[in-house]
Amino acid sequence: MNFKSIPIILTGVILALFVLFSGVSIGQQTHLDNVKQARNLDDDDVLAAIKTFMPRGGRDEYFAFAGTGNSGTMVVYGMPSMRIYKYVGVFTPEPWQGYGFDDESVLMLKKGSLDNRVYGYGDMRYPAFSETGGKYNGKYLFYSDGANSRIALLGLDDFETKQVLMHPLFISTHPGVAVTENTEYVIQTSQYPTTWDFRTADMEAEYDSKFKSGITFWKFEDPDHATESGHHIGRMIKDESFTLELPPLTMKYFDTGRKSSHGWVVGLADKDGKSYVYAVNYPKLEGLTKKTVNLTSVVTTSDAVAAGAVMLIEIPSGAKKVKTTPDGKYFIVANDEALVMDYAKLANAATGNAIGGIPVATYDQFLDGSVKLGNQVHDIAFDYRSGVAYASAFGDKKIIRWNYDSKDVESELALSFPPSELMTPQGLSAEPHSNYLIAVDKEGQYKNFVNIGPVRPNFQHLIDISGDNMKDIYTMSVPQANLYGSVSVLRTTIKPIIRYALGTNTRTGEISPFKTVAGQEKIDREGNRVHVFGTMIRSHITPEIVEVNEGDVVTFHLTNLERAEDETHGFTVGTYGIHGSFEPGKTASLTFTADRSGVFPYYCTEFCSALHLEMEGILMVKPKGFKGEKGEVELTLTPEQLVGYKKNYEDKLVVIQQTQDVINSVVTWLKENNYQDYSYVEALVNDAFDQLALAKTAEENHLKYAEEGKWKDAFLWAEQYWQYQVKTADVGLRAQTLLKEKLETKGAE
Amino acid sequence: MNFKSIPIILTGVILALFVLFSGVSIGQQTHLDNVKQARNLDDDDVLAAIKTFMPRGGRDEYFAFAGTGNSGTMVVYGMPSMRIYKYVGVFTPEPWQGYGFDDESVLMLKKGSLDNRVYGYGDMRYPAFSETGGKYNGKYLFYSDGANSRIALLGLDDFETKQVLMHPLFISTHPGVAVTENTEYVIQTSQYPTTWDFRTADMEAEYDSKFKSGITFWKFEDPDHATESGHHIGRMIKDESFTLELPPLTMKYFDTGRKSSHGWVVGLADKDGKSYVYAVNYPKLEGLTKKTVNLTSVVTTSDAVAAGAVMLIEIPSGAKKVKTTPDGKYFIVANDEALVMDYAKLANAATGNAIGGIPVATYDQFLDGSVKLGNQVHDIAFDYRSGVAYASAFGDKKIIRWNYDSKDVESELALSFPPSELMTPQGLSAEPHSNYLIAVDKEGQYKNFVNIGPVRPNFQHLIDISGDNMKDIYTMSVPQANLYGSVSVLRTTIKPIIRYALGTNTRTGEISPFKTVAGQEKIDREGNRVHVFGTMIRSHITPEIVEVNEGDVVTFHLTNLERAEDETHGFTVGTYGIHGSFEPGKTASLTFTADRSGVFPYYCTEFCSALHLEMEGILMVKPKGFKGEKGEVELTLTPEQLVGYKKNYEDKLVVIQQTQDVINSVVTWLKENNYQDYSYVEALVNDAFDQLALAKTAEENHLKYAEEGKWKDAFLWAEQYWQYQVKTADVGLRAQTLLKEKLETKGAE
Repeated sequence: MNFKSIPIILTGVILALFVLFSGVSIGQQTHLDNVKQARNLDDDDVLAAIKTFMPRGGRDEYFAFAGTGNSGTMVVYGMPSMRIYKYVGVFTPEPWQGYGFDDESVLMLKKGSLDNRVYGYGDMRYPAFSETGGKYNGKYLFYSDGANSRIALLGLDDFETKQVLMHPLFISTHPGVAVTENTEYVIQTSQYPTTWDFRTADMEAEYDSKFKSGITFWKFEDPDHATESGHHIGRMIKDESFTLELPPLTMKYFDTGRKSSHGWVVGLADKDGKSYVYAVNYPKLEGLTKKTVNLTSVVTTSDAVAAGAVMLIEIPSGAKKVKTTPDGKYFIVANDEALVMDYAKLANAATGNAIGGIPVATYDQFLDGSVKLGNQVHDIAFDYRSGVAYASAFGDKKIIRWNYDSKDVESELALSFPPSELMTPQGLSAEPHSNYLIAVDKEGQYKNFVNIGPVRPNFQHLIDISGDNMKDIYTMSVPQANLYGSVSVLRTTIKPIIRYALGTNTRTGEISPFKTVAGQEKIDREGNRVHVFGTMIRSHITPEIVEVNEGDVVTFHLTNLERAEDETHGFTVGTYGIHGSFEPGKTASLTFTADRSGVFPYYCTEFCSALHLEMEGILMVKPKGFKGEKGEVELTLTPEQLVGYKKNYEDKLVVIQQTQDVINSVVTWLKENNYQDYSYVEALVNDAFDQLALAKTAEENHLKYAEEGKWKDAFLWAEQYWQYQVKTADVGLRAQTLLKEKLETKGAE
Repeated sequence: MNFKSIPIILTGVILALFVLFSGVSIGQQTHLDNVKQARNLDDDDVLAAIKTFMPRGGRDEYFAFAGTGNSGTMVVYGMPSMRIYKYVGVFTPEPWQGYGFDDESVLMLKKGSLDNRVYGYGDMRYPAFSETGGKYNGKYLFYSDGANSRIALLGLDDFETKQVLMHPLFISTHPGVAVTENTEYVIQTSQYPTTWDFRTADMEAEYDSKFKSGITFWKFEDPDHATESGHHIGRMIKDESFTLELPPLTMKYFDTGRKSSHGWVVGLADKDGKSYVYAVNYPKLEGLTKKTVNLTSVVTTSDAVAAGAVMLIEIPSGAKKVKTTPDGKYFIVANDEALVMDYAKLANAATGNAIGGIPVATYDQFLDGSVKLGNQVHDIAFDYRSGVAYASAFGDKKIIRWNYDSKDVESELALSFPPSELMTPQGLSAEPHSNYLIAVDKEGQYKNFVNIGPVRPNFQHLIDISGDNMKDIYTMSVPQANLYGSVSVLRTTIKPIIRYALGTNTRTGEISPFKTVAGQEKIDREGNRVHVFGTMIRSHITPEIVEVNEGDVVTFHLTNLERAEDETHGFTVGTYGIHGSFEPGKTASLTFTADRSGVFPYYCTEFCSALHLEMEGILMVKPKGFKGEKGEVELTLTPEQLVGYKKNYEDKLVVIQQTQDVINSVVTWLKENNYQDYSYVEALVNDAFDQLALAKTAEENHLKYAEEGKWKDAFLWAEQYWQYQVKTADVGLRAQTLLKEKLETKGAE
C-alpha cells in the first residue's frame, strides 16, 4: 500500500458509509441496476418512478377530477400516482353503475332535459368544487355541459351525480363553471350567441337585434341537516336563480373573485373580431326586478347597466383564460403577454363607447403590469408560494414559472409536447397547495406513445415543481376523454361514505318508498301493472321466479341488503336490456314492458365475493292468449320429485347446522374480544343479527311444511333461511377480521 | 492507520467501486433516498417501481385486453406499465368515439339486435384473439355478451368494433368465447337453460322436455384481400354457422383443443347438482344434416350422439375453469384438486348412463394425474416453461406455481387479497410468453385502497414470475369495469393503422357513398329530406350555415379531410343530442329530425391542435309556417357591411400570401432533402398537394367575386381557399418534422 492510494481509499470509505446509511442494500442495488439496464432507464427515470409509484395500501396526496370533454363522464385520479380511481357518469349513461338505467337516475336525467330526452353525451371541460370562504370544502363538484346546455351537481360523499338541469334559454353553453366563494351561486354562461325565441334570424342583418348571450347564477343550497338516509345533498334551486341578458358575445373561459374581489365575475368574450373581458358584479344584480322569459328570471342588460353591474374591457386578442389570483387581488388575462389586472380599480372605471348598451373600458387603466411569457400561451396556474404562477406555451412547447407580483419570469421547462391546460392542486382556490403541476397533452403522437389506431388518448403530465428545476416525471394516458381542465383537492378533505342506509334512493338521499327488507319480498299486481319488491344478498335474488303476462308493465324494485364493504350486486334480465347496479343499502327500480314472451333468466352481474354462486332467477313472460299446450293444466309434483325435494331438504338441514356452528364460534370470539368497544365492528354485528332475526319466519315455515310433508315448500324455505344465515356468518367473519386488525394496529388508518 | 482498519477500508473500496460502476450517481442517490423516505417506500417498492415505470416514448412489451363484465366496453392496457391505453365501446355506446351515435355504428348495432333495439350495456368476461396455427395473429378480438346474447368482432388494425350479432336462440349466453386454432369458428355457448320457442314452461315438471342449452359455431371468414379502403375486415357468417342442441345444462367456462386435440371443445356444465365436463368434437358435426329453428341451423342432440361427437364426463363439483395446455395434450379442470385430463383418451371413452341421450363417462379414465392446489381455486394460467402452470386460491389468498407434467407444487406467493382470474401473456395460445402474471382482485377494501364511495374499482395485479420467488409488484385500478379474464399479446404482433383512406366507413371498411372532398360540399333537398355533404378540416366545418325547416329529416354526412396523425374532429349540434367523432379520413352520417325550431350552433368537440380555433357553424331550423316577422323579406347588406367585408377580404389576401410563403419554403426544403425516398413522408406531401389542387375553385371564385365587388362572397371564398392552404402548410410541416427525424435516426422505430 502506498500513499497515493489513500485518497482513493478514503473516497471509498466515504462512499461505503454513504451506501450503508442510504438504506439501499447491496444485493438490492445489483438487481435494481440489472432492471435499469434491461429496461433502458436512466437516473431521472428511476427518480421519477419512485416519486410516483404507489405501493399496495398506500394513499395518494390528492384527488383530481378531470374535465373530459365529449365523454360526458367524470374521471377521478390520484396524485402523484396518476392512477385512475373511478369513472362516473355525469351527462352520459354508464352501465357499470347503472347510471341512466334505473328509474331513479333516468328520472333525474329527464328532469334535466326540457323535452324528456336522455342525452347520451355531453361536453364538460372545466369543473369546479364547492367552496367555503374561498376554500374547497370537499362536498360537491359541478360540471357544465357545452353540448346540450346542462349543468350537473355531484356529491363527493359517494361520487355520484345528484342533479342535472337543462338551461331554459341557452342553446350553446360554455363548458365551464365557477362558484362564488361560499357557493352561494354556481355560475354558467352561454357560449355562441343564439336566439332565445325558438326562431331563426339572419346572421348578419339581425345579429345584434335577435341574437343573445347571458350569464346564469344558479342559486345553490347546501342543507345543514342530513336527509333521512344520513346523506347531505345540496341542490341548485331553479326558482331562485337568474340570468343576466347580454348582447351577442361569444363567451369563453371565466372565473369569480374571492376575498376583496368577492362579488365579481370576469370572463373572456369576443365580438366582431375584437376581444373583451366582461366584468359583472353580481350582488348588484340580486336586488333588481326580473322579467320572465321561458319561465326564467332575467335581468335585462339595460337594468344591469343602470345598476353599474356590468362592463366590457377591451383587450388584445388571443387570450385563452382569465383567472383570479389566490389572494383575490388580481385577475390575470392569460395571453402571450399576460396582463395582471387589479380588481380594486374596477370600481372606478372610465368607459367609452358602448356595445349593446354596455360601457366599454380600455384595459390599461386596470393594469398592474404585464409579462411576456411565450408563444400561444394557453393557460396559467397558481402556486402556494406568494405571487408564483405557471404558464403553458403551446407554440414553444414549454412551461414558464413566473411571478405576478414582481412580473419576472423565473424559470422554464422545455417539454417534448405542446402543453395546453394546466392544474395545480387547489390552485383555483384561496389555498393553492403542493409541489405538483399537471399539464395536458392532446397529441398522441407516435414518437411519444404507442400507436393504438387512428384515435389516441389524451395525456396528463405530472410535473414536479418542488425544486428550482421543474421536471416532467410522469405521462398518464386518460382513455375515453377529450381532456381539458382538472381540479384537485387534498385527499383527506373529501369524506366518502362506505355504504348507504338500507333502502336509500341514492339520487335524492331519501329512503325509497320501495325499500324492501328480507322476508318482505312480494309481487303486487293490479291489472297489467306488476310491482316486484325484491332483495339481493349473497348469493340470492328474492323472488327467484317472477311470472307475468306479455304486455304487462313490470317494475323490479330491488334493495341490496348487504352491509359489507364494496359488496355491490348487479342485476340484468337476459336480452331484455334491463339493468341496474346496487351498492350496499341502495334501493332502485327498473321498469319495462314485458313485450317478449318466453323464459328470461335474470342474474347478478357483479362478482360478489367469497360465497359467490351465480345469483339467478327466472322471469316467465306468458305469451298473450296462450293457455299451455294442453290448455290450463295444473302441474303437480310426481312421487319421484317429492322424494328428491325431501332429500334436498334434509341435505340443507345439515348445511344449516354447519353454518350455525360457524356463527356460534365467531360470536363467542367477538364477545371475548369486546366487539362493543369498536363502533364500526358493533354496527356490523348488529346488522348481522338484525338479518338473522328477520329469518325467523323462514325457519318457522320450513319446519311447518316439513311436518306436513310438503317437501318442496320445506326445501325452499330452508334455502331461504340458509341465505340469511350465510349473510350473518359472512358479516360476522368480516367483523372478526376487522376487529383483529383493530386490535393489532390499535386503530390506525 | 492500524491494520484493524484495513478490512473496513477494503470493504469501503469494494463498495465504492460498486457504486461507481452501478450507474447511480451520488447526488442522484441522495435525492432518491430522500424521496424513498418521504414517501415511505422500501427496497421492494423501489424495485417494483422501476420494473413498471414507463418513460415518455417508451413502449410496453404487451398489449392486454380485459373482460370488463357489465361495462360492455373493452379496456386496452400495457404491460408492464399497467397504464390504460384505450376504452372502446363494444356492447355499449361510447360518445368519445361516437360509437352508437353515427348512423354507421347504429346500423351495425341494430343489425346485432333481433328487435332493432340498441342495448346500452353487455356482460363480456372472457375475450379471445383470432389465431393462426394456434398462435395469436394480432388481427381480431371476439367478445360474447352474456346479458343480451350477442357476439362481437373487433378489428385490431384500428381497435374498433366491426360486427355485432345477436343469438337467434339463446336468451342467456355464457359471457366467454373461444376460437378454433385457425379461427375457422368462433364458439359461443348458452349459460342458463331457457325455452327456444318464446313460451313459458314449468321449471320442474317441464324442465327436461322444454328447456334447452347449446353450443354455437360461428363460421368466421378472414378475407385475404383488402377492402376498397385498404382495410382487412373479417366477418362471422350467420348462414354458415350452426348450433348444437343440448339438454338443459347450466353451461360455464369452456376452451378449445389445439395441435393434436384440434377439433375438441371442452367446457364445464352443471345439472341437478352434479358437475360435468362436456366434450364435443366439432368436425364430426360439420357434415351432419341440420334442422332449422328460428332460421338457424341446428344439429340435434341425437344426431350428434349418433355421430359420436358429444359426451359428458362427470367430475367432482366446484370446478371453475377448464383449459387446454399450450401443447394441446391435456385439458385441466381447475379445482381445489386440479385434474390433468388426457385428450388422447377421449376417443376411447367407456360411458355409462345418459343425460338427455348424451353418454356420461367417469373422469378417472381420462386422468393423467391430479394435484391438490389450495382452497377455492378460481383459475389457472400457463407459462412458457414446459409444464409450468399457476393457480389462484381465492380462499387461501395465494398464487401457486405448479407443474402439470410432474404434478408437483413448486412454490407459492402469499397475497393481501383473494385472487380470482389469472392471465399470462399469450397464455391461452400455443405460445405462452414472458415473465408476467396478472391476477384480478375484485375487492376494493379500504385497507388496501383509498375509499372512493360505496362502489370501488376492480384491480389487476402485476406479478413478476421471472425468478424463483414470485413478487406482486403493481396494483392497477381499472375504473368502470367488473373485471374478469384478460388476454394479452406481444405488442408488435398488432399492426395498427394511423389514418383511414379518405371517405372510409370504418365499420365496413368500404369507401362511403357519402364521402365528400373539399370543394364538393353541398346541401341536397328533396321534400322534407335534407342531405348535408360536409367536410371538416382545421379549423373549418363546411358548410358553415345549414337552413332547414321544422320537421325536416336531416342527415349530416361528414368527412374528416385530415391526413395528420391523431387529428380527430368531433361534431355536435347544441341541445340536439346529435354527435359524432371523425378520425382522419373517416366519413360518417348523423341523421335526425329537426323537431325544434331556432338557432343551433354546431362545433367541433375535439381539441384540434396548433391551428385550433373553435370550429363552428349554425343550424337554422325555421319554425313551421313562420314567414319572418315582416313576412318574406329579402335581407341585403348595408353599405357599411360591404365595406367591412371588403376589408376582411383584403386582410385575408395578406394572410394567404404569408401562408403561401411558408408552403414554398417547406416545399423547397423537402425537395432538397429527397422526400420521395421515404414513402410515409411522400404520402403526406402528396396528400397536401391533392388538397391544394382541389382548392383551385375557391381561388377562382374569390378572385371573380372580388372583381364583381361582391365582397362577402369574395371573403368567404378567400377564407375557404386559406383553409386548404393551412392544411397544406400543416401537413407539409409535419412531413418536414418527420423527415428530419428520419434523417437523424435513419428510420428506427
